[in-house]
Amino acid sequence: MKILLIGATGTIGKAVGEKLSNHEVVAANYKEGDVTVDLGSKSSVQTMLETVGKVDAIISTAGLAQFGPMAEQTDADYQLALDNKLMGQVNLVRLGKEYVNHGGSITLTSGMLSRQPLPGSASIAMVNGALESFARAAALEIENIRVNVVAPVFVKETMEMMGMDSSTGVSAADTAKTYTQALEGDMHGETLDVA
Amino acid sequence: MKILLIGATGTIGKAVGEKLSNHEVVAANYKEGDVTVDLGSKSSVQTMLETVGKVDAIISTAGLAQFGPMAEQTDADYQLALDNKLMGQVNLVRLGKEYVNHGGSITLTSGMLSRQPLPGSASIAMVNGALESFARAAALEIENIRVNVVAPVFVKETMEMMGMDSSTGVSAADTAKTYTQALEGDMHGETLDVA
Repeated sequence: MKILLIGATGTIGKAVGEKLSNHEVVAANYKEGDVTVDLGSKSSVQTMLETVGKVDAIISTAGLAQFGPMAEQTDADYQLALDNKLMGQVNLVRLGKEYVNHGGSITLTSGMLSRQPLPGSASIAMVNGALESFARAAALEIENIRVNVVAPVFVKETMEMMGMDSSTGVSAADTAKTYTQALEGDMHGETLDVA
Repeated sequence: MKILLIGATGTIGKAVGEKLSNHEVVAANYKEGDVTVDLGSKSSVQTMLETVGKVDAIISTAGLAQFGPMAEQTDADYQLALDNKLMGQVNLVRLGKEYVNHGGSITLTSGMLSRQPLPGSASIAMVNGALESFARAAALEIENIRVNVVAPVFVKETMEMMGMDSSTGVSAADTAKTYTQALEGDMHGETLDVA
């Protein structure tokens, strides 16, 4: 399969890329890779899709949103989450479905904070919940390809990098397995929790 | 109780107002009422709150979002849903919590389309899911008041007005009962489905 992987240099993206090494992976990132994209800009998403052309699948492990106490979260923090992690990925579906071959799939990334929030996650939980409900609804109107969302928990490597206790985390490699399940399965409109 | 009711002239808002007739209800609407508010404008929300002053509860039955086939939904349709139904109500919590007396509550409105979507509901389902996850997360950081979301199904009166079969709908009066449960109960961060 030819797979467009957005966020390919991220912790999860890198692990997903490794799992997909038997496929032709087109790596997309903000700054480097086979193609660059600013997920917060719809025209940048469109340009990326035109540059890459038809693919069998699109996987997004990207999307910016800022963790932080509600009392300190600014309008800009909410806007970043809405413009980038939410609408960036929503636009990947709205525009990207025309670039995915019949029988292919689009897989987005939300996160368990939508349903199991922590203090400091208000804007992230908000867009994660939005992505999961969007995919469920959009799937009802998208017939030739499948659209799903993977909801990771905290990634062990990220927790270690941040000096957190990583015992409750899941490794990037194990997280990546859920993306290959979304790629190879027959689910549509679903949220796949990383277990 | 002194209750600020936003969307007081809407189909659900009117029924909620009737259920609360033993309280002091301050009616807020876009165009008329005791105070006016443009939910899509954070400064308008702030002005409304300052005008009304301290209350025991805020109930929002307002929020614009456009139903329509995904193929026909424009960027503006998504933006309306994000700015008005979603961020309008999120800002009601962010700003409004300073105006609600200790032990009071804020109740927002999402809708069952977040979890039981229909074709044509992509942008509405998206913001409904966002509101439910936001309230769940925000509640972890809000201690002196409760924040919940009511998720109505289609309202019988609206369905009849639109010439739809209303047999699966719930009357506005019955829908309003869920808002009084949110007002009088002790739940916090929850989504209350209208049954």
